[in-house]
Amino acid sequence: MFILPNVFEGGSRPLCELELCLLRLSHDPANPWLLLIPKRPQITEICQLSEADQGLLVKEISFASNLLLKEFAPDKINVGALGNMVPTLHVHVIARYRNDRAWPGPIWGTQVPPNPAELDQIERRLKKLLAEIIK
Amino acid sequence: MFILPNVFEGGSRPLCELELCLLRLSHDPANPWLLLIPKRPQITEICQLSEADQGLLVKEISFASNLLLKEFAPDKINVGALGNMVPTLHVHVIARYRNDRAWPGPIWGTQVPPNPAELDQIERRLKKLLAEIIK
Repeated sequence: MFILPNVFEGGSRPLCELELCLLRLSHDPANPWLLLIPKRPQITEICQLSEADQGLLVKEISFASNLLLKEFAPDKINVGALGNMVPTLHVHVIARYRNDRAWPGPIWGTQVPPNPAELDQIERRLKKLLAEIIK
Repeated sequence: MFILPNVFEGGSRPLCELELCLLRLSHDPANPWLLLIPKRPQITEICQLSEADQGLLVKEISFASNLLLKEFAPDKINVGALGNMVPTLHVHVIARYRNDRAWPGPIWGTQVPPNPAELDQIERRLKKLLAEIIK
């Protein structure tokens, strides 16, 4: 049984459940930032997933990337599975812009002031798009 | 036809050719650092690959991760497809250690002094392991 670690509850909001992963929206009001968390207990590396689950993971990475490309027109998608601080396997799929706070460097670990209103708006746009795609 | 951009020649060494990707060793003497570069022209995002190629990519990410886990006993593997500076799709697979220069932050963009002798040793160990696996 997979139990979502508390740290994800504190730093992101639920969007929907995919076949392999929970899809969540990270608390970043500037760069739309998705998290894919495979519903598999005790997995910390992509290579520990079964071959079938690895196939699902890359499919869901593409799905998340396409959501961001369609809705937020980023200059680049950044995909990363780091897990140095939160070992439970999770994949970041992030909309990056040439004028964002960390460009062209990595955006992980950079600070961002909270802004619930902007985050609400990102969440609404993604949920509307998801409802159109999944219906 | 896929032509490897010059920037990869300058910053990494060839290890071997996999079904989808060129596998190269990045010029980092401290953290064994692999690059997977799909041999597909004009692709900048994972979601632009065909479904079959996406399946190969995740398989080769696992292959590269397992090489590092077996040979260098890292504390964590970091996987990332950023491409903010070099748009040609490439995936980093990096051995991370709790005492490395960037832990627990991302290692992309951190400076490292060149050390060809240490890099030669990493290359020899990986080529030996590859020869054992591929024979």
